[in-house]
Amino acid sequence: MQRPIIYLELVVLFFFITSFAFGQNSNETKPNFIIIFTDDQGYGDLGTFGHPTIKTPNIDQMAVEGQKWTSFYVAANVCTPSRSAILTGRLPVRTGMYSNTRRVLFPDSGGGLPAYENTIATLLKGSGYATAAIGKWHLGHLPQFLPTSHGFDSYFGIPYSNDMDRMNDITAKEAFADSKIEYFNVPLMRNTEIIERPADQNTITKRYAEEAVNFINANKDKPFFLYLAHSLPHVPLFASGDFRGTSERGLYGDVIEEIDWSVGEILNALKENGLDQNTYVIFTSDNGPWLVYNEQGGSAGPLFGGKGTSYEGGVRVPTVIWGPGNVKPGVISKIGSTLDLLPTITSLAGTKMPQDRVYDGLDLSPVIRGEESTPRDEMFYYHGDRLFAVRKGNYKLYFYSNNPAGYPEKLEKLEKQTLYNLGHDPSERFDLADQHPQIVAEISDLAKKHSKEMVFGETQLEKRIGDN
Amino acid sequence: MQRPIIYLELVVLFFFITSFAFGQNSNETKPNFIIIFTDDQGYGDLGTFGHPTIKTPNIDQMAVEGQKWTSFYVAANVCTPSRSAILTGRLPVRTGMYSNTRRVLFPDSGGGLPAYENTIATLLKGSGYATAAIGKWHLGHLPQFLPTSHGFDSYFGIPYSNDMDRMNDITAKEAFADSKIEYFNVPLMRNTEIIERPADQNTITKRYAEEAVNFINANKDKPFFLYLAHSLPHVPLFASGDFRGTSERGLYGDVIEEIDWSVGEILNALKENGLDQNTYVIFTSDNGPWLVYNEQGGSAGPLFGGKGTSYEGGVRVPTVIWGPGNVKPGVISKIGSTLDLLPTITSLAGTKMPQDRVYDGLDLSPVIRGEESTPRDEMFYYHGDRLFAVRKGNYKLYFYSNNPAGYPEKLEKLEKQTLYNLGHDPSERFDLADQHPQIVAEISDLAKKHSKEMVFGETQLEKRIGDN
Repeated sequence: MQRPIIYLELVVLFFFITSFAFGQNSNETKPNFIIIFTDDQGYGDLGTFGHPTIKTPNIDQMAVEGQKWTSFYVAANVCTPSRSAILTGRLPVRTGMYSNTRRVLFPDSGGGLPAYENTIATLLKGSGYATAAIGKWHLGHLPQFLPTSHGFDSYFGIPYSNDMDRMNDITAKEAFADSKIEYFNVPLMRNTEIIERPADQNTITKRYAEEAVNFINANKDKPFFLYLAHSLPHVPLFASGDFRGTSERGLYGDVIEEIDWSVGEILNALKENGLDQNTYVIFTSDNGPWLVYNEQGGSAGPLFGGKGTSYEGGVRVPTVIWGPGNVKPGVISKIGSTLDLLPTITSLAGTKMPQDRVYDGLDLSPVIRGEESTPRDEMFYYHGDRLFAVRKGNYKLYFYSNNPAGYPEKLEKLEKQTLYNLGHDPSERFDLADQHPQIVAEISDLAKKHSKEMVFGETQLEKRIGDN
Repeated sequence: MQRPIIYLELVVLFFFITSFAFGQNSNETKPNFIIIFTDDQGYGDLGTFGHPTIKTPNIDQMAVEGQKWTSFYVAANVCTPSRSAILTGRLPVRTGMYSNTRRVLFPDSGGGLPAYENTIATLLKGSGYATAAIGKWHLGHLPQFLPTSHGFDSYFGIPYSNDMDRMNDITAKEAFADSKIEYFNVPLMRNTEIIERPADQNTITKRYAEEAVNFINANKDKPFFLYLAHSLPHVPLFASGDFRGTSERGLYGDVIEEIDWSVGEILNALKENGLDQNTYVIFTSDNGPWLVYNEQGGSAGPLFGGKGTSYEGGVRVPTVIWGPGNVKPGVISKIGSTLDLLPTITSLAGTKMPQDRVYDGLDLSPVIRGEESTPRDEMFYYHGDRLFAVRKGNYKLYFYSNNPAGYPEKLEKLEKQTLYNLGHDPSERFDLADQHPQIVAEISDLAKKHSKEMVFGETQLEKRIGDN
C-alpha cells in the first residue's frame, strides 16, 4: 500500500518542479518585444493618422486595440542618428552618431556604432532573450558594427539605405522616376555575409515579413526581441507583384500597404502561437517624409516640414504601441520618444540598465499600463551637433531655421527665437515668442543647462574605410 | 367546449392584427436617421482624421464601427449654400441659394430656401416620420423659411450664424479674442418664436444635445429623422463649464470635445432605447476651417485651403456613417457628397423622390451596405455661380484660383488650368496639367456639358427684409 502513494508524490513533485522550471523561462514571466521601424514614412501616411487614400487596416486596428501616440519623436531627422537613438536610448551626440557634413553612413564609411554602446538587444540578450535584427541597419556595415556585434543573434537585411550603391551612369532623378533593381547595387546580408547583390527590392518587404514570422515561430517557447527595420518607403520605391499598382495613393501607397500587410502577418503569427497576450509590438518610423521626392515621398499630414528638418514634420513620427491585456488602449498626445524604448523595454523585461553612462530615454511603462500621464516633459531636437529647438510641455522654442523641405539645407541661427504652442497649433503657424517672453526665457535656460552638461562623443560618421 | 376555442382564436387574431399594425410603423420596418452637422469644422479636426491633440473618442469609435469617408464633399464652401444642398440634394445654383456678393444669409436678409424645395424632412414626413431640426438653420429666419415650413415638426436653435447680430461698438477682432455672450445678440428659437436673446452660447452645445436625446426618447416607437446642426465650432467659440479649459487644443478643442461628448449622449440614447440597430447616424461638417481666425479656427489636416475656397480644405469634410448591422464597416476613399444624403436616406426609408426636378445627389445606400464601390465619380465645385473646379475620378481640374485662406477672396479665372491627382496628392502640391493634356480636355468637356445643361435658380441671397 505504500508504493502507490510514493509514486503519486513523485509525480506531483515532478510536475511542480517542471512547471516551476518552465515558468522561469516561459512567456508568462518575460514578455516579448517587436519593434517595427519604417524608413522615411511621414506622420500622415497611415489611415489612423489621417491619410485619405492609404489603407492600413492592420496598423489602424493596432491603434484601436493599443495606444496611438500622437507626439512621439525620433532623436534625429535623418536615418543613421535616428537608428542609433532607438537602439541605445542615448542622443546621437553622445554616441558619436552625428556629423554636420556626412549626416548618415555611406558605403565608403569606416565608422559605425561604437562597441561601447549597449543596444536593447545587448541588454535583453543578457536576460536570456533570443534577438534578431531584420531589415535596414545603417549603423555601420563593417563586421565589427553589424547587428551580430551589437547583441543580435542574427541579421537579415540591407545594411544601409536602399538608394545607395547607385549605378554611376544614372542620375538620381532617372533612378527614382522608374526604379529598377539593378540601378542600386545594394547588398542583402545574412549575419555578416552578403547573400544577394543587388538585393531584389521588389520582394524585400515580403521577405522581411517571412523572416519575422519564422523568427516568431522558432522562438515561441522563449522570450524574444525582434527589431524589424523596413528598408522602405525610402526611395527608390518597390513593391511585390501582390501590391504593385493596387493603392489609390500610387506606388508609395502600394509600399505602405504591403508594410501594413506584413504587420498583419506578424500579428497573426503571434496569435497563432498564443503569444499575443505576452508581446508588445511597437510601430514607428525613423524620421519624416522625404518631401523633395514629391509623389515618391510621403506626407507629414498636418505637420510642417519633412525629413532633414527638426520641424515637427521631420521628427514627429506615427507611433502605435500594442499589447492586448498589457497596454491600456487610448490616444496619448503627451510626449514620447524612440529614446524611451530602451528604458521602457528593459523595465518591462525586468532587465537592468547599466548605470555607467547617461541615458536620454525615460521609462514609459507606467503610461503603457495606463497608470501615469508621461514622465517626459521635454524634447531636445538636434541637427548634427546643433541644438535646433527645445520643447517643454506644449511649447517649442527654435534657435535655428532650415529649409522646410530639408534639402538643400539652409540652416541659419535665428537672431530672434520663435515659439509655438504645439498643443494648439500642431502645424506651427503662429509664432508666440512676443506674447510669452517668460516661456522663451525658461526654455532658453533649459537649453543652456542641457548644452553645458552635454558631453559630445567623437563623431563616427566622417570616417572612411581605410582611415586610421 | 366550443367557447374556449373561439376565445383562443380571437386572442390569436388579436395578436396577429396588432403585430401587423405595429409592424407597419415599427422601427423594424423603417430605419431612423440622424444627421449631425458641425459648423466650420475642418477635415483634420477629429482624432480619427489625424488631429494630434483633439480627443474625439465617440466619433472615433463610430468610425471604427461604421464607415469613415475620406473624400466626402459639401456642395459649397460657405454655410448657407452648403446647408441648402445637404437638405435638398440639389446644387445651390439650382435652388437659388447662391450669390457672388452676399454668399450667405444675414439677419437683414429677406430670402430663404424657396417653398418649392423639398427637404429630407419634407419627404420623410410624408412617409410617417417624426422630424426635428435642432441647431443652426441659416436657410432663412423669416417664418416662411424656417424648419417648420420645410417639413420639420419642430425647431430649436439659433437660426443663423452665431457671430451675427454683433454689438455695434465692438470689432470682430475684439469680439472673437475673448468672446462674451452679450457681444452677439443672436436669438434662440423654439419653432417660430424667439425664446432667448442673446442666446446663452456657453450652454448651446449641451442644450442641443439634451433636445436631441429628448426627441429620441419621445419617438422611440415611431420612425424619426433628426437634423442636428451644431452652431459651433464657428467663431465665436463657447463651451460649457464642463469642457472649457480642458482640451490640449485650447478653446477650439474644448468645443470639439463637447460636440464629441454630445455624440456619445446621442448614441447612448439610441442604445438605451434599443434603437441602435435600426438607426443611421451621419456625422459631417458644413465646410472647411475658417483659417483667418488662426487658433480660433480649425485645421484642414493635410488638405490645402480652408473655408471660402473650393480647394480640398474648403469643401472636403470629415464624415462618418454609422449604423451597426446596417453599415458595413470600412474606410471609403471614393467620392461621396452631402448632396447624396437625400437620395440615400429616402432610398433606405423606402420613400419616393418626386421626379419633377433635377437632383444632383446619388443613392449611396449600396456603398453603405458594402455592395458597391460608389456611384459618384464626379464632383462639381462651385464658388457662387462660378464653376471653380471639377473632379472626375481622382483628377481635379481647376478653372479658377483663390486666396487659399478664403478671405479676402481673390478669385481669378485661370489662363491655364491646373490638374491634381487627389489619390496620389491629397495636399494638391503637384500640378499635372502638362503631363495629362487628354485628362484636362476630358474634364473640360465634362464641365462645358454640365454648364450648358445647368438651369440656374433665381438667387435668394441678395434679398433684404422689406424688398418686394
